[in-house]
Amino acid sequence: MVNQVQRGGGCWQSCKSDSSGASNSGGESSKESSRCSTPVLDADRSDRLRDKMRRRMESGDRWFSLEFFPPRTASGAVNLISRFDRMGSGGPLFIDVTWHPSGDPGSDKETSSMMIASTAVNYCGLESVLHLTCCNQTKENITGHLAKAKHLGLKNIMALRGDPIGADWEEEEGGFNYAVDLVKHIRSEFDDYFDICVAGYPTGHPEAESYEEDLRHLKEKVDAGADFIITQLFFRADTFLKFVDDCKANGITCPILPGIFPIQPNTVTVDGAVCITEMCSLQGYQSLRQLVKLSKLEVPDEITKVIEPIKDNDAAIRNYGIHQAVEMCRVLLDSGKVPGLHFYTLNREVATMEVLRQLGLWKEDPRRPLPWAVSAHPKRKVEDVRPIFWASRPKSYIYRTQDWDEFPNGRWGNSSSPAFGELNDYYLFYLKSKSSKDALVQMWGEELMNEESVYEVFTCYITGQQNCNGHKVMCLPWNDEPLAPETNLLKDELEKVNRRGVLTINSQPNINGKPSTDPIVGWGPAGGYVFQKAYLEFFTSSENVDALLKVLKKYEPRVNYHIVNVHGRNLTNALDLQPNAVTWGIFPGREIVQPTVVDPVSFMYWKDEAFALWIEQWAKLYEDESPSRMIIKYIHDNYFLVNLVDNDFPLESCLWQVINDMFELLDAPPEPQSRLNN
Amino acid sequence: MVNQVQRGGGCWQSCKSDSSGASNSGGESSKESSRCSTPVLDADRSDRLRDKMRRRMESGDRWFSLEFFPPRTASGAVNLISRFDRMGSGGPLFIDVTWHPSGDPGSDKETSSMMIASTAVNYCGLESVLHLTCCNQTKENITGHLAKAKHLGLKNIMALRGDPIGADWEEEEGGFNYAVDLVKHIRSEFDDYFDICVAGYPTGHPEAESYEEDLRHLKEKVDAGADFIITQLFFRADTFLKFVDDCKANGITCPILPGIFPIQPNTVTVDGAVCITEMCSLQGYQSLRQLVKLSKLEVPDEITKVIEPIKDNDAAIRNYGIHQAVEMCRVLLDSGKVPGLHFYTLNREVATMEVLRQLGLWKEDPRRPLPWAVSAHPKRKVEDVRPIFWASRPKSYIYRTQDWDEFPNGRWGNSSSPAFGELNDYYLFYLKSKSSKDALVQMWGEELMNEESVYEVFTCYITGQQNCNGHKVMCLPWNDEPLAPETNLLKDELEKVNRRGVLTINSQPNINGKPSTDPIVGWGPAGGYVFQKAYLEFFTSSENVDALLKVLKKYEPRVNYHIVNVHGRNLTNALDLQPNAVTWGIFPGREIVQPTVVDPVSFMYWKDEAFALWIEQWAKLYEDESPSRMIIKYIHDNYFLVNLVDNDFPLESCLWQVINDMFELLDAPPEPQSRLNN
Repeated sequence: MVNQVQRGGGCWQSCKSDSSGASNSGGESSKESSRCSTPVLDADRSDRLRDKMRRRMESGDRWFSLEFFPPRTASGAVNLISRFDRMGSGGPLFIDVTWHPSGDPGSDKETSSMMIASTAVNYCGLESVLHLTCCNQTKENITGHLAKAKHLGLKNIMALRGDPIGADWEEEEGGFNYAVDLVKHIRSEFDDYFDICVAGYPTGHPEAESYEEDLRHLKEKVDAGADFIITQLFFRADTFLKFVDDCKANGITCPILPGIFPIQPNTVTVDGAVCITEMCSLQGYQSLRQLVKLSKLEVPDEITKVIEPIKDNDAAIRNYGIHQAVEMCRVLLDSGKVPGLHFYTLNREVATMEVLRQLGLWKEDPRRPLPWAVSAHPKRKVEDVRPIFWASRPKSYIYRTQDWDEFPNGRWGNSSSPAFGELNDYYLFYLKSKSSKDALVQMWGEELMNEESVYEVFTCYITGQQNCNGHKVMCLPWNDEPLAPETNLLKDELEKVNRRGVLTINSQPNINGKPSTDPIVGWGPAGGYVFQKAYLEFFTSSENVDALLKVLKKYEPRVNYHIVNVHGRNLTNALDLQPNAVTWGIFPGREIVQPTVVDPVSFMYWKDEAFALWIEQWAKLYEDESPSRMIIKYIHDNYFLVNLVDNDFPLESCLWQVINDMFELLDAPPEPQSRLNN
Repeated sequence: MVNQVQRGGGCWQSCKSDSSGASNSGGESSKESSRCSTPVLDADRSDRLRDKMRRRMESGDRWFSLEFFPPRTASGAVNLISRFDRMGSGGPLFIDVTWHPSGDPGSDKETSSMMIASTAVNYCGLESVLHLTCCNQTKENITGHLAKAKHLGLKNIMALRGDPIGADWEEEEGGFNYAVDLVKHIRSEFDDYFDICVAGYPTGHPEAESYEEDLRHLKEKVDAGADFIITQLFFRADTFLKFVDDCKANGITCPILPGIFPIQPNTVTVDGAVCITEMCSLQGYQSLRQLVKLSKLEVPDEITKVIEPIKDNDAAIRNYGIHQAVEMCRVLLDSGKVPGLHFYTLNREVATMEVLRQLGLWKEDPRRPLPWAVSAHPKRKVEDVRPIFWASRPKSYIYRTQDWDEFPNGRWGNSSSPAFGELNDYYLFYLKSKSSKDALVQMWGEELMNEESVYEVFTCYITGQQNCNGHKVMCLPWNDEPLAPETNLLKDELEKVNRRGVLTINSQPNINGKPSTDPIVGWGPAGGYVFQKAYLEFFTSSENVDALLKVLKKYEPRVNYHIVNVHGRNLTNALDLQPNAVTWGIFPGREIVQPTVVDPVSFMYWKDEAFALWIEQWAKLYEDESPSRMIIKYIHDNYFLVNLVDNDFPLESCLWQVINDMFELLDAPPEPQSRLNN
């Protein structure tokens, strides 16, 4: 899809197929395997995090992972989800979300650890690890959290003890006194379902009797069933490398990921020590709060010496932090002992992304396993077809189909009616517009004069030009992202028709067998070919629809159409309930993949959502009974939603000609007999 | 498929899609609807015989149907099944098979009415009507026959009384005294499952009190649930047209099909009357035996006058019969009262086909709903994908998968292992070669000298040239039909490689988007595009395979291969259990259809069958321990079965280059270092 669908920004674009190498015959496929989301094409193959790690280690393909903490506010949650999409695009093997015992972490609040991790998995398609602490918790509580996590599609747990709350904590017999108790509990209650990560302490745990004692505890955690280790932060590569050697000497053979912490502004105090306490009070950053107590963690002199003179220069601190992290990571990677790097992001993007770019690990790969945003929920791993309508609203689609039991071709191939969830939940943080109400009013008009004012908004969105008040229109209710660069292909035509009230919200050009590696329209494993039928979807007035229907007779059976108004009046020439495949791909050694269809049944559900967005997102910006609101309401009540498919994909699309014919018919003087009839 | 797959002869080629018009927007689709087999593409739409009739009547598209009687011998059954395939290619709406109460008609014998009708449905894909008589039968017997018919996939019953056996027959209270009792019984026991046909008597039933009384009986049968009527034969169009008017006047509104009987040699006696009795004793033709008693059926004078002088001239009689039938059918069709014509074929082809050709009703339409032979069993109506391996042995494929509960894409798309039935049943009449053992020996060699003798047989099959004993090789164990005409595309290459021991048994060229109406490679509804990946399957020696494997390294990942010997030693570069789609089609307003796959799992089942055919069909032609038998046995034991797919369908196929490279490698002098190694 090209029109209003953003391509470059989301996580999905870079989630490669496990088998982008197109064959199991060489190292290529395993080398490119297991990036952030499990590709649908190989859903049945081992897609556990530990298996992805194993394959990457076998092929020598280094990875990175990113740690986030839950936000404090609802708008923080919206921002964090956008950040997931942006940082997901670099190809992390996984992300992890910390656990705040004091912040109701297992609740359904939009700021809870559980909800943030669930959103990362389900709506951002990120392989995610949920932290869980066991200290001062009942067995029932822990089991409840784990069961909920499993139900939400989470597959990986970072098992931690957590800080004892209060000074009078004592070991409880049979209780959860240490992380190893939690690991054992997970394995005993959930068998092998979860992949389990545990924490390692390169300088020893502050409460451990000794470094050696601590290594023995770590060995116990691994023996109890942990699959891999992430370490606390450290500032010298040697610290970590010695730790890895010592682990090995103690019989620990699972992957050990170094925790990397790029020094950033506001993380140093005047005396040059890492200001953990302040950070924590400011941001409630659990992992860092733990660090406060790591008495052994001291900032090395060589770092303090550099930082002290520049402590008031944010840019200099940041640059130094990036430089220091890159240097240390290079030593780690060169050692051959480090399969992947784990970044404590502090929910910030710049420093971590820059370090990863300099290391060559940040790979914004335009290749996608499928043309749309794949969810990482295990239930959806076989999902390989969606209606085109939600192309710009994938999170809404995932939300509305979350209760489906299966996602086969069959859902479209037979007459079983797909039941979509209601979309009355515009308040949900992962469905919210990133823009504030003020910004939306500026973009879409302080005051609308007439329908043409609305046409102007659509036109500005297409052209990227400022509206009459000097604001760029960066989004529309149906498209939360600016127009994708490749839409330039259709830009002139789109501008022309929007200006005249053909208000486009989705479109794709026809494609007749481009390589699957094509940077603009490609998807799926290498060596394949992708195809599309031209598609155009728009709102337009009933007068236009009358003319359009006359024109469409000339294009039978080449063009399929569905035309519907808010009341459900439905005009179509499509076969009953037959979906029309509009995107498909042919790959070496595989079945045909047809990820996008125009499905008559789900179009009626999309219609409800598409019309509702006029009201929910646009009309409600204005006062009740205000002229602006009445104009949007008029369009909502009277316009039709139209979709057109040109089935003849090898020929130049005729859809623009259809629209032109419609305009010509509208412009033509009335025919003599119709005058007589009047 | 092009190589050894016959295109022009089978019934399948002409079974059009219900929606060949590619859209429901015009009359075209309904006009072309409902030819002999229900197309898979529209399986869920009304595919009952009565609905097909209704659609054809609505569109004014006249049809024909064909009546056959069961054979007396096993070889007669083999011949009749071939005739079904040939006559099915003209596009009958249905065929019907008569019921012989004295011939164990409901048994599993290959000559039973039940088995013949079942074979027509399941293996020839013909919509079929099974006759059933009720006279002198118990309710349990009747119900048993009906239940068995339903189980076998039969959906239509011609409900008849049948001849009372013995002179002392009397009406039995509550028994099956008349056809109407059978109609009622079917409806009461099987609800609306069966479409029911009943017999009409244009000149009145011989036992009826009067013509009017007979019409009342017919009305009773229709009221009891009959869907349409087929009449006994007659010789004047007026007879039938009056009958139709009288039916209408009596409130009979269902379709009434005239029974057409083209006069043929050996059906007339010296006195010019139709020689029913002789025919029946010769052929046991039930419908005609009934005619014996139709005292009212007299051959009109104008016919007798013509026939009498030419009664000893078979050709003249046949020509007259054809002429007379054509003239009468024209009058019937011109009347506008006749939606379709029913032919009493007497199991002969020539006269009926000629009448149909002259009437323009015989339509060998190269368009096919799918590229392979669709079965008419209702259970298989959603079947839309098959492995390519059985392309030349569709009946064997249907037989081996008869116990499958479903035929979805899913069977190939997931790892559930398809369980194929054993193929130890080479004796089954519908799987037998049409050629006699003597003919096979002549084609495949009285005596084989060496492996090259076998290469020669394959080469002669490809070229169509005579073998060294002057016999054309019309079939191979893997291909019961001569090479299809379009195979000329590949003929030169095939000849070259077979001559050198690459013994091809299946192949198809690559196709990059030809119109679905293409006469050679097209299939599916009009307005679509079909695609193929190049495919080549052959037996070859282990020496050749060694060279081939070296060569194939150069063609990774473009070429997928599976190489297996009779012991199951399996070499492949394909992804585990992943099917490779090698034929697919894109159609207006539809999902992608991918009817043919190379499936690794089913290849191992096909392998068993393909190797077994060497022994079962070829080696067993020769004496135990004879050199000829040992040669075939040697090939069976030592050769490999190879299949190759060129995934790069838009480019010229590289498969011939692969084989050439293999020969070049075999021809090259050994490399110096390998000599040193020796």
